[in-house]
Amino acid sequence: MAKEMTLYWGAGSPPCWRVMIALEEKELRGYNSIQLSFEKMEHKSKKVLDINPRGQLPTFQHGQLVINESFAACIYLENKFKKQGNELIPTCPNEQGLMYQRLFEAAPLGQKLGDVIYYEWKVPEGERHDSAKERNKNAVALELSLWEGYLKKTGPFLIGKNFSLADVIVFPNIAYAFHYGLCPERFPKLAQYYNMLKERPSIKKTWPSTWQVKKDLLKELKNTS
Amino acid sequence: MAKEMTLYWGAGSPPCWRVMIALEEKELRGYNSIQLSFEKMEHKSKKVLDINPRGQLPTFQHGQLVINESFAACIYLENKFKKQGNELIPTCPNEQGLMYQRLFEAAPLGQKLGDVIYYEWKVPEGERHDSAKERNKNAVALELSLWEGYLKKTGPFLIGKNFSLADVIVFPNIAYAFHYGLCPERFPKLAQYYNMLKERPSIKKTWPSTWQVKKDLLKELKNTS
Repeated sequence: MAKEMTLYWGAGSPPCWRVMIALEEKELRGYNSIQLSFEKMEHKSKKVLDINPRGQLPTFQHGQLVINESFAACIYLENKFKKQGNELIPTCPNEQGLMYQRLFEAAPLGQKLGDVIYYEWKVPEGERHDSAKERNKNAVALELSLWEGYLKKTGPFLIGKNFSLADVIVFPNIAYAFHYGLCPERFPKLAQYYNMLKERPSIKKTWPSTWQVKKDLLKELKNTS
Repeated sequence: MAKEMTLYWGAGSPPCWRVMIALEEKELRGYNSIQLSFEKMEHKSKKVLDINPRGQLPTFQHGQLVINESFAACIYLENKFKKQGNELIPTCPNEQGLMYQRLFEAAPLGQKLGDVIYYEWKVPEGERHDSAKERNKNAVALELSLWEGYLKKTGPFLIGKNFSLADVIVFPNIAYAFHYGLCPERFPKLAQYYNMLKERPSIKKTWPSTWQVKKDLLKELKNTS
């Protein structure tokens, strides 16, 4: 089945990584794994644009079906291969409700991390402001403090005792924050979560090879919870 | 069952509206509908912050479960009340995959509309640039052109012949674009979709009462598809 799947991905991208984790969790191995280079603008190449008009990675194809939104690809894989590998969506409606709540909160988390991390890349030189940078940093500190609070309340995983699709989707963002220097002492629950999950086989196996050298952009962020 | 539900909402907000449409589609009536005022900052009031630390609307509660992300609330309602009202998630895996793809693409659509519509509100006066405004308008024109293309290919609904959860989630954004003056002649498929769905009972019944006077912010946008 996995042989009919193709994943176009770029190294170090949290959205690409989450699809790779989902594939591992569902024991879908042997898919066509095609690594492209963001630097060489290969995500804007014809072969990507033909199936993903957004020209973004991941681009994921299973047979005739194309699913490029990383959250959607993860949900699809779980629903399509429910009984294979680890079950990632809880059946209890209340647990499931909380799972979807956390899963969708990955969107503001990713957005706010991106506003800081990609600032120079997104905002042309003449439009940059220190006040905007400061505001973005405060917003991401507040956001990460929320997640620190969630884990305090319902840890060790995002919805309690069991690993779920919410972890598949959110973990790459949390790992990204630590890669960018988030201070473990100030966010102890997030650090505990990070250290626990980085040893999980699906995550260890797919760990971004480009994340060798830590950065320090988020080093000064303070926990407000 | 609906009596155990409370929806805090604000008039004219697409995210609030989609939860109201989902409740109607699932024939969940008689829930506690609490309208709050954005102008009076009631979304930052203690009663909201107590269950939604983001201080945003919608805020949705069902018994002890709190689901504030509008996409998550809609998925929860469909899964919890699968056999009640209209079935909104197709069972065929390929159709379901496409549905989730479109559903999650509502996020960049909403984001790009928001970047234009809320520009003055989001960006402090000293940080505003005509070049940024222009870039945001171009981005939303490109985004809406994508959706025009999707409907051309797979209409009349977003995933084909049947109304689905993707329509519940995306329609309020499309309606928002027309409310802000999008030109029906330039985006004929979107206009057809808009005109068809605005007559759907769940949508007609919940139509934002504050949308009486049309605005013209998006009047000049051109279809690039």
